[in-house]
Amino acid sequence: SPTRTLPKTPDRSDAFVLPPPQIKRRQDGVFLAAWPRRGATAAVGVFVMGGSRDESPEQAGAAHALEHMLFKGTARRDARAIAEAIDQLGGGVDAWTSRERIALHAHVPWPDWQAALALLEELAYAPSFPAQEWAREREVIFAEMAMVADDFSEWAHDAHMQMSFPDAFGAPILGREATLARLSSEDLAAFHAQMFTAPNVLIAAVGPELAALEAALSADAPSSGSPRAHEAPAFAPGVHTAPRRVQQVAILLTILLPVRPWREELVDAVLGAALGGGASAWLFRRIREERGLAYSVHAQWTRWDAAAAAEIEVFTEAEKAKPCAEALREALATLPEALDEATVRLAKRQIEVGIWMAMERPMRLLDRLADAFVAEIPAPGAVLGALRAIEPQAVRARAEAWLEAPRAITVAGHPRGVREAARVLARL
Amino acid sequence: SPTRTLPKTPDRSDAFVLPPPQIKRRQDGVFLAAWPRRGATAAVGVFVMGGSRDESPEQAGAAHALEHMLFKGTARRDARAIAEAIDQLGGGVDAWTSRERIALHAHVPWPDWQAALALLEELAYAPSFPAQEWAREREVIFAEMAMVADDFSEWAHDAHMQMSFPDAFGAPILGREATLARLSSEDLAAFHAQMFTAPNVLIAAVGPELAALEAALSADAPSSGSPRAHEAPAFAPGVHTAPRRVQQVAILLTILLPVRPWREELVDAVLGAALGGGASAWLFRRIREERGLAYSVHAQWTRWDAAAAAEIEVFTEAEKAKPCAEALREALATLPEALDEATVRLAKRQIEVGIWMAMERPMRLLDRLADAFVAEIPAPGAVLGALRAIEPQAVRARAEAWLEAPRAITVAGHPRGVREAARVLARL
Repeated sequence: SPTRTLPKTPDRSDAFVLPPPQIKRRQDGVFLAAWPRRGATAAVGVFVMGGSRDESPEQAGAAHALEHMLFKGTARRDARAIAEAIDQLGGGVDAWTSRERIALHAHVPWPDWQAALALLEELAYAPSFPAQEWAREREVIFAEMAMVADDFSEWAHDAHMQMSFPDAFGAPILGREATLARLSSEDLAAFHAQMFTAPNVLIAAVGPELAALEAALSADAPSSGSPRAHEAPAFAPGVHTAPRRVQQVAILLTILLPVRPWREELVDAVLGAALGGGASAWLFRRIREERGLAYSVHAQWTRWDAAAAAEIEVFTEAEKAKPCAEALREALATLPEALDEATVRLAKRQIEVGIWMAMERPMRLLDRLADAFVAEIPAPGAVLGALRAIEPQAVRARAEAWLEAPRAITVAGHPRGVREAARVLARL
Repeated sequence: SPTRTLPKTPDRSDAFVLPPPQIKRRQDGVFLAAWPRRGATAAVGVFVMGGSRDESPEQAGAAHALEHMLFKGTARRDARAIAEAIDQLGGGVDAWTSRERIALHAHVPWPDWQAALALLEELAYAPSFPAQEWAREREVIFAEMAMVADDFSEWAHDAHMQMSFPDAFGAPILGREATLARLSSEDLAAFHAQMFTAPNVLIAAVGPELAALEAALSADAPSSGSPRAHEAPAFAPGVHTAPRRVQQVAILLTILLPVRPWREELVDAVLGAALGGGASAWLFRRIREERGLAYSVHAQWTRWDAAAAAEIEVFTEAEKAKPCAEALREALATLPEALDEATVRLAKRQIEVGIWMAMERPMRLLDRLADAFVAEIPAPGAVLGALRAIEPQAVRARAEAWLEAPRAITVAGHPRGVREAARVLARL
């Protein structure tokens, strides 16, 4: 079998820096985004600007249900034929629903990217919503809900989002049994028509050039409509509690931040890494490495369409909940002083290496393209350059801003541990 | 910033097929394994032939505890300095412990692979086991245990392994609190000396050639010893139950199989995919797609050192447990007939595309190299060729063999659902 000849070992990774993504808006409003990259595989996706936060209360769970039903029948294929088409592509076709997006995606061997794209277009534009399939698929979603309910980590995150974001943004993406039971397949078809309109659709590819992507698209197109925009979600600062009969206590903390230009947000990303991204990160060190108070300690900066957040999560045992909360409180209070030159340098390395890793991960690059609805997607080379230029004082200034910003805390799990930790965190 | 010029779009993926791995045994018995691959990143690892199954009852949990302690101090660095060295490499340095291996690994930008390898060698050969660090780290492991206990899926898998494999092979990898509480840092140092001997160490790299890997190794080497071998684990066929206060019922089924040459095992892998690997797989179709009886339905073929297994798992709600168990029973009984030409062709595609995907995933290739202790690791091109040659009747013959082989079933979760499903599966 043919094997490639390995070129001379590279002594600089720079030879592998990807070019900038190519993005355009087609006449009908559809976004096209391509990230040219040569490899054994390629990835394609169809993204919708809109997700669970765009549901009315009666539609709760409709975006996620719609995502499931896209695989249950089209104008040309029934569910079985769709499943076979997916497996013929190797099985790497899937979908997800978030608060702000619905996504269909495929990761396939390079020669199959056009076939994968054609399948995704058919699923996205021509779903048939058979009533009998919906009756069955709703049961599958009920089983999925039971799975989330039985998973303490997922359950705690859901509780935190609901209490911190009191409107549709914070509601569970899966919806609720009672609401889903009332949704008909016609309701889902109507929701599809509302969501999949041309200016709210983005077709993305990692592998081919934009011109090749455009040439590969079918004649089909979504119906017209007006572009959707998301506002910053309503936020409920404070300390919330969610007791449950488990061994652990979860402390989940969200600091709400405004969106900013990408160069400034890169500083937030570095701060997130310095706070809780790696083995030497401040929270990890203070809570786990120096005190042994938790197994899972993590922090990161996250961005939604119209808001950003610093997110901290700590999972510990009930007996350690109080000292753990105290250590967290102390670590946050002293964060700006902790950001010395060495700490910031290591945090920058985390972000830099994450960029290198992503360049070998077509699916990560594809998801990044879904941001094109709302933000500029800079070239990896430009990000690497901006990252190198970040100074410790800029990161410290952001830390001060984080500590001034509104924050919501949820303490979930073992009832006594929750009470003790919540009391400590009320004085954060 | 520099960007590479994209070569002409490949119309065949064959240009990307990796060469065979390069494997040799050094004079002192250490295995060296390299999978040359050019990319933005590289991966290196140190693997030990031995894991939790090699613990005595008093050592239960020692392999996993040892893995944690490798990061807590060496002859040259304390825990803090190790954490900083890891983050300086971008944070992609980690470790895992399984029933049959202890692994240290690093995924780093290409230019850092030698530095990463030097760090892994230091962690593997020169740990210092500070008593105070162990006192703290033990608490971290207790918190990790609470996390596993609160996760129904992990808990159910642990229960299934313990009841299906009654000796050390099936015991929980994390060990038990009582045993860990009695283990001292000296015990861990002794366990390290017992495990990390030259003929039981494998140093692997994905990226550089074998000669470059060998040249990059430090003068340090593990102490001598004799090669460890694993026997097929003791197996307890039958239907086991594990009730617990949750909403779901998990059905976990293991069919124990002998190890065979890789070309024959490839047929097992195809059968695993046909049974439960993809959207059109037999179990997925019969249980989820046609009946809506579960959200999570999965099957695969797995290989350990001296045994292999077909593993099936289904998670459903308590109310659906009985019909779900009936559907599983019916689907297994009719498996051989289900394996028509189209089904086998789609299953082969799953495996084939998995091979393509792995060629872009340095960490997956690295883990594959850890099999070099016990098995030949064929070139991807040879595997692709052998795969194409597999005929449906060979897969059907394996299905007959699977149905004749000993099997252990665990039904876990919601008590009433468990009773009902176990009654059905007793007549499997």
